[in-house]
Amino acid sequence: MIEYPLPVLDAATRERFETALYGLMAYRELTAFERLSSDARFSPTLADRDALARLAVEEFRHYELVRERIAAAGRDPQAAMEPFVASIDALHERTRPGDWFESLMKAYVIDSVSGDFYQAIALALDEEARVLVSEVQSIDAQTLWLRERLHDALGDDPRLGSRLALWGRRLLGEALTQARRIGDRHAFWDTLIPMPPGPERDARVAKLFARLVENHSRRMGDLGLTA
Amino acid sequence: MIEYPLPVLDAATRERFETALYGLMAYRELTAFERLSSDARFSPTLADRDALARLAVEEFRHYELVRERIAAAGRDPQAAMEPFVASIDALHERTRPGDWFESLMKAYVIDSVSGDFYQAIALALDEEARVLVSEVQSIDAQTLWLRERLHDALGDDPRLGSRLALWGRRLLGEALTQARRIGDRHAFWDTLIPMPPGPERDARVAKLFARLVENHSRRMGDLGLTA
Repeated sequence: MIEYPLPVLDAATRERFETALYGLMAYRELTAFERLSSDARFSPTLADRDALARLAVEEFRHYELVRERIAAAGRDPQAAMEPFVASIDALHERTRPGDWFESLMKAYVIDSVSGDFYQAIALALDEEARVLVSEVQSIDAQTLWLRERLHDALGDDPRLGSRLALWGRRLLGEALTQARRIGDRHAFWDTLIPMPPGPERDARVAKLFARLVENHSRRMGDLGLTA
Repeated sequence: MIEYPLPVLDAATRERFETALYGLMAYRELTAFERLSSDARFSPTLADRDALARLAVEEFRHYELVRERIAAAGRDPQAAMEPFVASIDALHERTRPGDWFESLMKAYVIDSVSGDFYQAIALALDEEARVLVSEVQSIDAQTLWLRERLHDALGDDPRLGSRLALWGRRLLGEALTQARRIGDRHAFWDTLIPMPPGPERDARVAKLFARLVENHSRRMGDLGLTA
């Protein structure tokens, strides 16, 4: 995803960077669990409700994985999550799904964009961190179900398609804005891109974001939607 | 819990009765999961939020246990749950917690009363059904946490005590009304108490409910509250 030379981090920077990434991931997965499970009860059928609840429980499992990793490193998971509470909560408030399909779409878009973002950040960390990110990001049975369910629903209803395409763009915009802000505030770019701030570094940050957008477009294309 | 002679059920009655009990349990556990996890985000601290989310995931595990049992018997879990959707949803609507402590209390009261009710119903079924009920009802680490957390909060704040005592009574009233209605509508009493409808059978149903109230009072007493 990133071609430029990766940074070699000293122990203190590495620890700070890792704690920030893990705190961000843990809090995002916890809130994804809470929001998805709240939305589950508006599902059209009991089978859909079951599936969305399962998806939520999967997000909780991811949260637990990351939380355990933070605790195993002798750090406090609550303290690690705290700096991300306000911005993640704000993202959720600005992206409240209007119905069940918008909930599915939110899970599909935000989980994927976040996963790509974590992956880009984890490049500066060791193999263990990259494995953790890929576990949290894994395309499992639930995610496949999500894509198929959306795909089927869109096939049945062209108007839903234009509504969800619009919603998908809004979700992407909010997710990227948030990722950008979090990266600025927590000095992710300083750590990730070993060069002084300036136009060249900005171009590299921009390139990272361009990749996030590209992956998103491909995923929207998988649904038959234009990003 | 019940001293009178237990019924001997023919295969068709037993199957109908078991499907009704399991459908009720599955839907109640699924909705308990959805409601608790929605409430989790209003928790005062991240640690409390973590604990409530864990409690919700535990309810989902119970749902899955029952759902699998229904499916293993070759029946359709959705169809088994369907008859209970309206009444359980109505119960939740009438018992929306006003804050995090009311959520805890709701889990504490409704889970316990429901568990006692399932247990009374399962007496008419076989060992396998009784084991399933006790798994769903089990006092595990999460439930103990719930009791301790409430106990501590009540010790710190006497005004919270009188508010939660009132809330507990309301929860009990709603749970008993619902249990009574469900029992009437699904002919639980006919099956459970092998005698014709009439004052004697009514007295036995009343005795079953008296036990639910008694257990509830003991549990409220454990919190230092008057039921």
